[in-house]
Amino acid sequence: MEQLKNKILAEGKVLSDTVLKVDSFLNHQIDPELMQEIGKEFAKRFEDAGITKILSIESSGIAPATMAGLYLGVPVIFARKRKSLTLTDDLYSANVYSFTKKETNEISVSKDFLKKDDVVFVIDDFLANGQAVHGLVDIIRQAEATLSGVGIVIEKGFQAGGAEIREQGIRVESLAIVDSLENGEVRFRDEEAGK
Amino acid sequence: MEQLKNKILAEGKVLSDTVLKVDSFLNHQIDPELMQEIGKEFAKRFEDAGITKILSIESSGIAPATMAGLYLGVPVIFARKRKSLTLTDDLYSANVYSFTKKETNEISVSKDFLKKDDVVFVIDDFLANGQAVHGLVDIIRQAEATLSGVGIVIEKGFQAGGAEIREQGIRVESLAIVDSLENGEVRFRDEEAGK
Repeated sequence: MEQLKNKILAEGKVLSDTVLKVDSFLNHQIDPELMQEIGKEFAKRFEDAGITKILSIESSGIAPATMAGLYLGVPVIFARKRKSLTLTDDLYSANVYSFTKKETNEISVSKDFLKKDDVVFVIDDFLANGQAVHGLVDIIRQAEATLSGVGIVIEKGFQAGGAEIREQGIRVESLAIVDSLENGEVRFRDEEAGK
Repeated sequence: MEQLKNKILAEGKVLSDTVLKVDSFLNHQIDPELMQEIGKEFAKRFEDAGITKILSIESSGIAPATMAGLYLGVPVIFARKRKSLTLTDDLYSANVYSFTKKETNEISVSKDFLKKDDVVFVIDDFLANGQAVHGLVDIIRQAEATLSGVGIVIEKGFQAGGAEIREQGIRVESLAIVDSLENGEVRFRDEEAGK
């Protein structure tokens, strides 16, 4: 998605060979018009997939997921993160390890909102090691719902998550795939160049 | 806002005389079309206020704030919540006590995104005791920016926050004011009935 890539080039901060900071439009400050275009793009790519629900995760997944939900005409659930493990019968839960924060969070979704007949589209802001997506997919399996695919705003193509998830036969659509941050420079994957 | 009140009446769960649960469209599952209408309504009420930034707080403030940002044509910042106090020079921070969780969280905003010449519109999902709004207003004061007003999706009119903030001369626009949850019934404030 050209508009997104231009925004990353203009405002993204390369902090190291593995860290890209996009706090000015996605992770702390949000650009609502860009989120709208991202939502439209996700909706276009999954318009024929029979989606009934979008599943995302707090906090940075919420804005792009809400916009995609608007254009697909479906509700959006955001999984909650909690540090303490509280056992409750009415929640689907999964553990998600954060390599950045070096801690495990429990994520959970109310059983009220995810049902067996749901066709679910997972949306998140970043895909790196894939831990959050694995947790969300786990929750969809617990609900016995159908996973339609995964939509990612920015994928770090040089980390293992994307390849691992695609190897499971899951459709992953990333609007920008960053293949390298070496020498302080953002290099996008070629196959995405025309999109 | 009639559409919002009807949604509260249809889907809100009164758990006690003080607790209203709206997990099906605002706090866990999100209704994107309702969020769009909420965004338009906030934009309409503040269209002549010269707003340059919206300030909200993770997580449930993000969806309505992003939609308001879209229709006002301004960026949205969401304050981050953290349990541990990490001193950093590049953040504005404030403490917010949660009566529900009985804990104090530090909320913070990067100094990069809030400037002296900003005219700021604070948006949050709920207003009860007003702790979150007080923290956000504190951060705006630290940045020496101008506070234009506060937009709330659901105000609990029977708790002190709204009155206290209005007494400071701050404009507060709540799209639905709940004056009582007694006997398991949601009663809205009369003055809002026609909106």
